[in-house]
Amino acid sequence: MENVKILEIKQSVFANNDAQAEKLRQELKKRRIYLLNLMSSPGSGKTTTLTRLIEALRDEMRIGVMEADIDSDVDAKTIAATGAKAIQLHTGGMCHLDAAMTRQGLEGLEPGDDTELVILENVGNLVCPAEFDTGAVKNAMILSVPEGHDKPLKYPLMFQVCDVVLINKIDVLPYFDFDMAKCTEYIHMRNPNAKVFPICARTGEGIDAFAAWLKDEVTRWRG
Amino acid sequence: MENVKILEIKQSVFANNDAQAEKLRQELKKRRIYLLNLMSSPGSGKTTTLTRLIEALRDEMRIGVMEADIDSDVDAKTIAATGAKAIQLHTGGMCHLDAAMTRQGLEGLEPGDDTELVILENVGNLVCPAEFDTGAVKNAMILSVPEGHDKPLKYPLMFQVCDVVLINKIDVLPYFDFDMAKCTEYIHMRNPNAKVFPICARTGEGIDAFAAWLKDEVTRWRG
Repeated sequence: MENVKILEIKQSVFANNDAQAEKLRQELKKRRIYLLNLMSSPGSGKTTTLTRLIEALRDEMRIGVMEADIDSDVDAKTIAATGAKAIQLHTGGMCHLDAAMTRQGLEGLEPGDDTELVILENVGNLVCPAEFDTGAVKNAMILSVPEGHDKPLKYPLMFQVCDVVLINKIDVLPYFDFDMAKCTEYIHMRNPNAKVFPICARTGEGIDAFAAWLKDEVTRWRG
Repeated sequence: MENVKILEIKQSVFANNDAQAEKLRQELKKRRIYLLNLMSSPGSGKTTTLTRLIEALRDEMRIGVMEADIDSDVDAKTIAATGAKAIQLHTGGMCHLDAAMTRQGLEGLEPGDDTELVILENVGNLVCPAEFDTGAVKNAMILSVPEGHDKPLKYPLMFQVCDVVLINKIDVLPYFDFDMAKCTEYIHMRNPNAKVFPICARTGEGIDAFAAWLKDEVTRWRG
């Protein structure tokens, strides 16, 4: 396993997170870095999905990854093994990242001038992370098949703020009572513009479509 | 579907949650009501497990259930269909329940003098609910097989505060890379006294052992 830098994130003190997030986004725009905020429940497959995504994109662009976790550094080590620049952010029990905490993470990651894409893997939680703009250009989330197709009904804000929903673990669809059409309908009730990509991070199925969408996004952001 | 009472929970104002929780616990002790706090990630199977548990115990004791959710009332309707007294608590975006919010829920549920067991289904979240004593006699949590056996490493506090861990969805063990022995070892790293019950809420497998443990708990609490 690779050794990775671990950064202990401090609780931030800014009252106006939205303003901090907008400021960070504008700075990233100037530096031509695209920041994607990836959220999900614990165990939905964020790290495996990122591994596959990096494999699909690493010949096309330089990628950095910030792995937020309450504890442990297993995820950042997994990502570092792909060759992407990775840092582990320890939130010390905090349930989400806001813009100021994301900024601390970026200062720790130190993406070079040639870095085009930075991905923040947020804390595994469908509630709190949805409430805080991190300064990312877009929000993505993973819903895995075993969690059930009713989650957009139960966690409305998360689905409302996400531009992309990856439906992961489609290889186990035969063993679960998961209705893909209903799920897509519920997602679009929350956000009519959300892109939905069914994927299987374990086998790589469906990753190419998501990677193509993201590549297009990064290109347009960098201008 | 049954009609159920929906209660909008107000944010509580008490600085010292631990004292409020202890006070509530002592009041419940006097009323001979056992309160169980059930936590998990979204989609781990809390409501299905409760349905099975109620089926196993309803001839033995009177049960009330408080279903906390950010939005929707589907879970309370499912529980009410079992014949148990159920109430839906809407947290209005809040990511956990504390003791004062649990008290509001109990006032809304109005368990009769013959109620022996009340179960609080907490908000689906492995982070925040672990930080707040609800006043429950014991904490239980569900980890489902698709979430992975490494979760006790990543969400240490949740596993530390739980007296019981139900490992759900064991029917899909053949399709996931889940190591039951390692999972049990990790759980016991966090809490050496935690009881671990492998279950399948969908088929009812393993529920009897959990129900027997809970029945014994309730009997001892009521004295």
